[in-house]
Amino acid sequence: MSKTASGRYFEDFEIGQTFAHATPRSLNAGDASLYSALYGTRFAPQSADTFAQRIGYGAAPIDDLLAFHVVFGKTVPDVSLNAIANLGYAEGRFLRPVHAGDTLAAVSDVVGLKENSNRQSGVVYVRTRGLNQRGETALDYVRWVMVRKRDPAAPAPAGAVPALASAVSPETLGGACPPIDVAAWDFALSGSPHRWGDYVRGERIDHVDGVTVEEAEHMIATRLYQNTAKVHFNQHSEAQSRFGRRLIYGGHVISLARALSFNGLANAFHIAAINAGRHVAPLFAGDTVYAWSEILDAAPLPGREDVGALRVRTIATKNQPCADFPGREGEGYHEGVILDFDYWALLPR
Amino acid sequence: MSKTASGRYFEDFEIGQTFAHATPRSLNAGDASLYSALYGTRFAPQSADTFAQRIGYGAAPIDDLLAFHVVFGKTVPDVSLNAIANLGYAEGRFLRPVHAGDTLAAVSDVVGLKENSNRQSGVVYVRTRGLNQRGETALDYVRWVMVRKRDPAAPAPAGAVPALASAVSPETLGGACPPIDVAAWDFALSGSPHRWGDYVRGERIDHVDGVTVEEAEHMIATRLYQNTAKVHFNQHSEAQSRFGRRLIYGGHVISLARALSFNGLANAFHIAAINAGRHVAPLFAGDTVYAWSEILDAAPLPGREDVGALRVRTIATKNQPCADFPGREGEGYHEGVILDFDYWALLPR
Amino acid sequence: MSKTASGRYFEDFEIGQTFAHATPRSLNAGDASLYSALYGTRFAPQSADTFAQRIGYGAAPIDDLLAFHVVFGKTVPDVSLNAIANLGYAEGRFLRPVHAGDTLAAVSDVVGLKENSNRQSGVVYVRTRGLNQRGETALDYVRWVMVRKRDPAAPAPAGAVPALASAVSPETLGGACPPIDVAAWDFALSGSPHRWGDYVRGERIDHVDGVTVEEAEHMIATRLYQNTAKVHFNQHSEAQSRFGRRLIYGGHVISLARALSFNGLANAFHIAAINAGRHVAPLFAGDTVYAWSEILDAAPLPGREDVGALRVRTIATKNQPCADFPGREGEGYHEGVILDFDYWALLPR
Repeated sequence: MSKTASGRYFEDFEIGQTFAHATPRSLNAGDASLYSALYGTRFAPQSADTFAQRIGYGAAPIDDLLAFHVVFGKTVPDVSLNAIANLGYAEGRFLRPVHAGDTLAAVSDVVGLKENSNRQSGVVYVRTRGLNQRGETALDYVRWVMVRKRDPAAPAPAGAVPALASAVSPETLGGACPPIDVAAWDFALSGSPHRWGDYVRGERIDHVDGVTVEEAEHMIATRLYQNTAKVHFNQHSEAQSRFGRRLIYGGHVISLARALSFNGLANAFHIAAINAGRHVAPLFAGDTVYAWSEILDAAPLPGREDVGALRVRTIATKNQPCADFPGREGEGYHEGVILDFDYWALLPR
Repeated sequence: MSKTASGRYFEDFEIGQTFAHATPRSLNAGDASLYSALYGTRFAPQSADTFAQRIGYGAAPIDDLLAFHVVFGKTVPDVSLNAIANLGYAEGRFLRPVHAGDTLAAVSDVVGLKENSNRQSGVVYVRTRGLNQRGETALDYVRWVMVRKRDPAAPAPAGAVPALASAVSPETLGGACPPIDVAAWDFALSGSPHRWGDYVRGERIDHVDGVTVEEAEHMIATRLYQNTAKVHFNQHSEAQSRFGRRLIYGGHVISLARALSFNGLANAFHIAAINAGRHVAPLFAGDTVYAWSEILDAAPLPGREDVGALRVRTIATKNQPCADFPGREGEGYHEGVILDFDYWALLPR
Repeated sequence: MSKTASGRYFEDFEIGQTFAHATPRSLNAGDASLYSALYGTRFAPQSADTFAQRIGYGAAPIDDLLAFHVVFGKTVPDVSLNAIANLGYAEGRFLRPVHAGDTLAAVSDVVGLKENSNRQSGVVYVRTRGLNQRGETALDYVRWVMVRKRDPAAPAPAGAVPALASAVSPETLGGACPPIDVAAWDFALSGSPHRWGDYVRGERIDHVDGVTVEEAEHMIATRLYQNTAKVHFNQHSEAQSRFGRRLIYGGHVISLARALSFNGLANAFHIAAINAGRHVAPLFAGDTVYAWSEILDAAPLPGREDVGALRVRTIATKNQPCADFPGREGEGYHEGVILDFDYWALLPR
């Protein structure tokens, strides 16, 4: 038995398989500082213990996406070491708050398999749960990824595309958000006067700012998440790839776009669910990321008067300012678009 | 009302205006680690809990400049988003120690306004207070910044250049420094045998070492401070600017120079006040920073036998070693100079 | 007396000299996060408090090499500021666990001196102890370094090459490893089913992955360790050196190789001793590091049934995959080799 992992190929997966991924990871204040330094995020509850405690948290929570990336990173050696592309996300739910001192582990179930028509590869669907040290599910999500076959002649494993919700039902949101004392929410300190009710369906917001990405930054981030996908790290081998460059982890783009969205969505302090996500095009070091958002929907939360949910679609671009809201064009996307991300955010009412 | 901030222009300011800036920020051990990794600072009380506790601190304090940069960063969206240049600092005072676990917020008052003769812009003077979670002022300072007018034809707001002290009075120093047990100060562990009394007015010290700056480093640092000034981050837009490059945050230069100054001023463990600061020329990634210092003055602190104050002027240069002490030349500066920084430091007596 | 340190030259050393190095350094969770983000290390006990506590640690220990680098960094101003090259290590022992909250200081004794035949330089041997806040030796090691003479005509100091063990005796290992509850070791979460007994002498393991290094990364790491050797930081002066570039700290290479070795040695969770280490060739930014290991020996630990020791030789290369195990060739090494590192690791039995 080889001591080194070379990763699973498409024909190695089967429906119902479960992976208890290595390695659990304790998150602490240092991870929060690094996350802040990598993205410049400014949402008030995550930034300041005082703000968090005043509204009802025990302490500043760990950023939702930091928790997501750490859980995602664990799945790579078992699921996507031989991936061609990470295709999409659905049914992502943030169920319990994560705080400094918590330890996250990840478990994935194979929930769908579909061979590509060229028989060179197939799409693997996994539902991943991020578990805290008490064994509670802190977050879960489905992702699907195109994985190479070891042997194109191998028979495809049985399976099908799973039925996935086009959006997480707003009735189920809010598990990771404690009851918020809205009267204690300081709208000067949070950076915007705009509450949940101030946004309307169809509203578009250009987040204005742009940020250029360096190789050192995305590699430091991706290692922080213990994500080992070699396309992000190895210029010596990637020089021979079709792009000739290291690919930036898609989650890095999501976090950059989320941080940029503060300018326009400063009170959208919590990602409650990920409805859908698509990495439309790759990002490379030296590119500058911009973003804009559209409010797709708004929904109250059952039994809660403190916070409401906005369904937000954030589009990220590269080297393309977003004043004109570049997005879908015909069958595809504007050439500058790199990310199409659809999520539920909570805001104070 | 637009959801996104586009920043104030010169004609939007008025004397007496107060801004309670977003977003408060809790500082923790992770921020201290990152600060150490970004600058390589080695002052013993900030580096080691043991050293700090032995001399009288409860624990290693947060570096004075880290606290300063975090407070400064908060002011950018309200004050300097449309700034052409950050011109200077005065009357900076460090009034209370900052420790891991403290949360800093910032409030600024507009204390001076002066339109430039070209009517395209004006200079805005703000006094900023950094407040801890108890509402105490941990530090305050005045800075002035040149801000664009939205409309050159707009009437200039009323105001004038405020009267500012050329230096902070040494009688007022020391609020952020607890009583120090000098007998417990280990001069081997602190890196130098030189006490306050070993320095003389006019003494010049070449700090010898040089450090090259990378894009990833200054952006990580500036985001750690939640400073969002776009000139530091967006190569796509800065390519069209007069420099064609991202500008490095001036505070990054101050911290680099301060860290270099350890070699010669190892026991100058605390910045008690900022008398004046001027960013003489911009720094860009790839440049190498050197520094030298001159002792401008020395003063005891009223009622304290433990520490004394040195008034230090630190000059930082780029791509220019400082053995010959490059500084002022005629009306201007030696071409390599980027920073002229005048501060009071405390040393054990 | 000059206020600035210019470092010792070969003729300034004498046998029996002791240096109490500046500056002690408290290690905390932020340092562990940064270390993780710089190398992507995934060994389970260091990654997760839960895993560590289940097997017998009080909390996740600080990575052995992070502690080593911090101790090493302190020695630079006193020992190797005028070094030409760091030549080797021996008799390195990890004697007590290091945890977040601990403070490390360093003391070195000069144990050997030998002038080079050209009389321009000589080799200095120092034994360095890393002391925790209780004054206990957490780790110690011997290193030797080639140091310039200030004056080639100066008489060489008396001394000789010290007798050094070719390997640390396995009977002395394990001081930094608490008793491990192997029944509680979760081999799924740790990333590999392979125990101590699954490895055999002579076994070779290609660690497969490669990682490209950026200037910002190695400088951030080296500053985290407060290592001030100017060759790592100053491109302005290094442009005139024989390489024309900044040299990457050798310890950075050791940590990169160790992190890569997870793929094949995932349960080798603790470095108990460093038998020998040699930096065969320099590493520069832009290079991609690969690694492979050979099992040189296996030994039980006296009186312990929980863990066993493997003597591992890890070879790191640059821009050279290791499927063919490039290593010694005749009198020298394969041209891609940069590191030859021989250590004892502990694994669960």
